[in-house]
Formats: sequence, C-alpha cells, structure tokens
Amino acid sequence: MGEFERIARLRRAFAAEAPDVALGIGDDAAVLRAGADVVLSVDVVVEGTHFRRRFADEATLARRAAMAALSDLAAMGAEATALLCAWVLPAELEEAAFDGLVAGTAAAAREVGAVVVGGNLARGPGIALTTTAVGRAERVIRRDGARPGDGLFVTGEPGAAALGLAALLAGREDEALLAPFVEAWRRPRAHLAEGRALAREANACIDLSDGLLPDLGHVCAASGVGALIEPDALPCPAGFGAAAAALGEEPERLQLVGGEVYGLLFTAPEGAKLPAGATRIGTIEATPGIRLCRGDAVEPAPEAGFDHFGG
Amino acid sequence: MGEFERIARLRRAFAAEAPDVALGIGDDAAVLRAGADVVLSVDVVVEGTHFRRRFADEATLARRAAMAALSDLAAMGAEATALLCAWVLPAELEEAAFDGLVAGTAAAAREVGAVVVGGNLARGPGIALTTTAVGRAERVIRRDGARPGDGLFVTGEPGAAALGLAALLAGREDEALLAPFVEAWRRPRAHLAEGRALAREANACIDLSDGLLPDLGHVCAASGVGALIEPDALPCPAGFGAAAAALGEEPERLQLVGGEVYGLLFTAPEGAKLPAGATRIGTIEATPGIRLCRGDAVEPAPEAGFDHFGG
Repeated sequence: MGEFERIARLRRAFAAEAPDVALGIGDDAAVLRAGADVVLSVDVVVEGTHFRRRFADEATLARRAAMAALSDLAAMGAEATALLCAWVLPAELEEAAFDGLVAGTAAAAREVGAVVVGGNLARGPGIALTTTAVGRAERVIRRDGARPGDGLFVTGEPGAAALGLAALLAGREDEALLAPFVEAWRRPRAHLAEGRALAREANACIDLSDGLLPDLGHVCAASGVGALIEPDALPCPAGFGAAAAALGEEPERLQLVGGEVYGLLFTAPEGAKLPAGATRIGTIEATPGIRLCRGDAVEPAPEAGFDHFGG
Repeated sequence: MGEFERIARLRRAFAAEAPDVALGIGDDAAVLRAGADVVLSVDVVVEGTHFRRRFADEATLARRAAMAALSDLAAMGAEATALLCAWVLPAELEEAAFDGLVAGTAAAAREVGAVVVGGNLARGPGIALTTTAVGRAERVIRRDGARPGDGLFVTGEPGAAALGLAALLAGREDEALLAPFVEAWRRPRAHLAEGRALAREANACIDLSDGLLPDLGHVCAASGVGALIEPDALPCPAGFGAAAAALGEEPERLQLVGGEVYGLLFTAPEGAKLPAGATRIGTIEATPGIRLCRGDAVEPAPEAGFDHFGG
C-alpha cells in the first residue's frame, strides 16, 4: 500500500462535516472558521519510549495518542474541534495495523466531537504518532493563576495508569489483580467536559501527564506559590494497594510521581462549583515548595519526577 | 540535559510577542486570537527517510523541516502566524546539535514572521521533526479550482532540489558543479509572499513537494481537469543540465518528478496578475490526463511519481 493509497484511506475514514471546519483533509492545509480563540497543542508518542507494540492493539494505541494531545486542551478548558495526525510508520507495518491506527484515531475524534482535518505519513524505524489537537475557548485556564488559599483538586486517579504500565512492562497484564490498572493505562480519557466546566471556576489547571508532583511543580512555579498535599486524600481505586504490592511498587510513590494519568490538576477558590469526580487533595500556600501533610506532620515532598527524556 | 531543561531552553529561544498570539509556549496549549480563518498543516521529516545527519548541520535541517510545513500554508495563500514543533530525538544527541535544531527553527520562524507557540520532546531511535504550521487567510486557494483554459505556472525551479539530494546521496556535494543544487535542497524557502499575492488571482494552487507531475496530478484530480505541459518552458537554472549529466541523471526526469522543491504550482486565468518569479509551463485542459507537448508532438506524461512511503 503506497502513500497515496494510504492517504485515500485516511480521507475516507476521517471524512466528516463540522461547523468549524471550512476545509478538511485533501488540500495543502486545513481551514477552520474561528469565532473564538484557537487553542493548540501537540503531543508525540514513540514506540519503545512511550509504548511497545505488545502493550495494546493499534486502535487502542492510536486512540491513546490522540487522547494524550486532547488532554492538553482539557487542561485549558477548551472544546476540541480538530486533530492533525503526523505518523511515522515502519515500512513493514501490516495493512491491518494501519487500519487499526486509523480506527483508533477516528474513535478518539468521535468521542470528543472533533474532526481529523489533516496529517502526514512518513516511513521511519518505528511507530511515532504526533497529534496536533486544536480547540476553541472563550476563556482559557492557565497554569499561572493559582492563589494562596485555593483548594487543590484532581480529577481521575493519579498512579493508576503508572501501575498499569508497570504491569505491562513486567508482562503481567493478564493477572486479574492488575488488569483494571492496565486498562487505565490503555484507555485514558481526556477530561474535556471537566475542563470546560472549570473554565469559569478554576484559577489554574494542568493535565496530569508527567505525574502529580512534577505537574503541581509546574503550576506552583508559574504561579509563584507553594502547595500542601494530603497524601491520604488522594483518590485510591479499589485494589490499588494490593496490586501495587504484587508488583513490589510503593502505592504512594505511584500516586505522587506516576505519569500518563490524563486527569486534571486544578486550583479553585472556596465556593467554586466543582465538576463531578473532582477530589480535594490539598491547599495552595504562599510559601514556595510542595509539602506533604500526614496528620500533624508536614514534610517536604520528594524531588523525584518523571522525565520522559531522562528516563 | 533533561526534558525540563531542554524545554526551558526552548522557551527562552522561542520567546516572542505577536498580535495573534494570546499565549505561547509554557502552558498546556497555545492560544491564538483568530480574526480570520485559521489554516493548519503538519509535516514530518525523518532521519534516514528524508535526510541523513551528514547532509547538513542541525540548524539547516531544522530550518528546512519548518519550511516544508510552511510551504503548505504558502500553497493556500495564507500568512504564517505560528509553529508547533514535536521533536523525537535520540538519547545520545549532543547539546550543540539540540541547540542547532533550536536555532534553525527560530530562524525559519523569524524569516516568515511566525512565532513558535508550542511543542513536545520525546526520545526515539533517530531524529524526527514534526512541524505544525498555523496561518490565517481571508481567502484560501484550493486545489480543486483549476479550469480549462487556465495558464499553468510554477514558482521556483522544479528538479533543482532533487538534483541536490542526488548529489548528497552520492557523497558528491562538494563538487563545484553540484554545490548550487545541494544548496537548493538544503535551503528551501516557503513561497509565502507569492502565495499571498496569488490568493485573489489563482484558481488553484499546490506546493511542489512530491514533484511536478504528482502534484499536478493532485490538482487535476481534485479539479476534474487535465493539463498540457511544455517541458521546454520549465525553468532551468544555469548549469542544471551539466550537473545532472555529471550524476548520470536525466534533467527532464528531475524536473518532472523530482520532489522537495517547495515552490508553488498554480493555475490562473488570462490576465491574472502573477507574482515575481512565476513561469508559465502549460495550460489546463478539459480532457483528463497530463500531456507533454514538444513542438507539434503531444505525448502522455509518464506515470512515475515520488512516493515517500513506497520509495
């Protein structure tokens, strides 16, 4: 299957109409009608770095790649309008695998009400899926608006996807105890509805992709504040502790620095209307730095982060 | 150098203000103020597929990657406003090489008056540079508007970059005869000014990335027309024939199917105002198919194309 035939297949799979899309796939560029501000983010997932082929079928991997990019729009409080997909694929990629990537991307677009408006195909040593997510917003939530006294909240379950990834890396994804967390890694959801609900409520928001502490660190640095986290308040799904123990992982470490969650971390003043599923985990403080509070004891949070590049 | 440090370096290098940019690098997504329609395209260049490290220094390679994406905006008649860069880089990439990529991208943005508003870094087996180019346009030029009787024009010199690539592949880039064409490959320019000038003049436009015949094929298929090309009218830079002969290449084949040109191919009615550097190379006809006209003889154009994926 040559590039032109693949592109023809993509055009058929991604054909869709949407009010914002003046021109979709098929020309040199896509054209969006813009009434509101345009929100843009790009994310790349690379075989061997972020996933291995055996971790999931191609449709699941492609849906996940799109959700990772869409999660950034969620963190801005934006509505998703369009996706552009630049795929590097090995020459020997099977036709069924290609079709799986297409199906998974189309599924992600459908779930969030977006249209795939463009893309690019190239041959390379392994699969690398780059997604540009395009959204619109009347008002965005930035990272730099957190204020002392704000409550600190998460949507989603920090650590669950990192536990699933650990199970996949150990080849133990089929164990009943671990399977729900593997599913959390495989099928993240961009919290777009939560983000939109927060657009007029939150003072600051970021998506949990690097991990709770590193992402909170970004918010605190941008806002010039510090934070106090109550680890006991972190949402803990059923079976989390037992599954972590089975893998020899420390549950709290996974919750604090485990990445690839794709929930939201936000700060909001007293009285803000919270989206369903939000959990308060702490408080923004004027003193820089992140501290953990257990009962009466307060200690500095560990420095460790999840650095895609370094490790 | 970890990911966060690299991102900090990117933020400093790409810091810029622009009227359209409400929020640049540093949050989950970028925000553009949109008065006109938003034009979007994505392009990826992959080490080993589109280039080898020895073909040029990193700044040149990165500038070239950005220009390839910007060329699609030129073909729409759009003005460039922003770039997003998703880079896959090998773990062992030297700091100077990273800085070169940054400098080349910044140079491309500066040349076209755009701002780098976002990006993503990931580790992978080789360099792959994905650029999302964002522009704006009051009126775009599509591929599907060519009409019988339109003149057929190019800006730029089809075949020159392909000849340079052949010289690079042969390791003969330093020969005086070949050096100007190596430079054509290394330093393409997105024809944005030409594209903007054509927005109210041309009936159809595409950028010459796949090669003259394949790209003309896209225009003809989208517009439901055919075309007659006069090969003798194709712009032929000084020394082109001799340089092609030195490499055992057929000059006309390079002009007709050589890719990576990054000029524009457009059709316009009689009396249209043409941008500087445009050359008439033929005529749009009602009969489907592409024909070559030499004096009184007319023959069907060869089928061959340049397929990134297949070859």
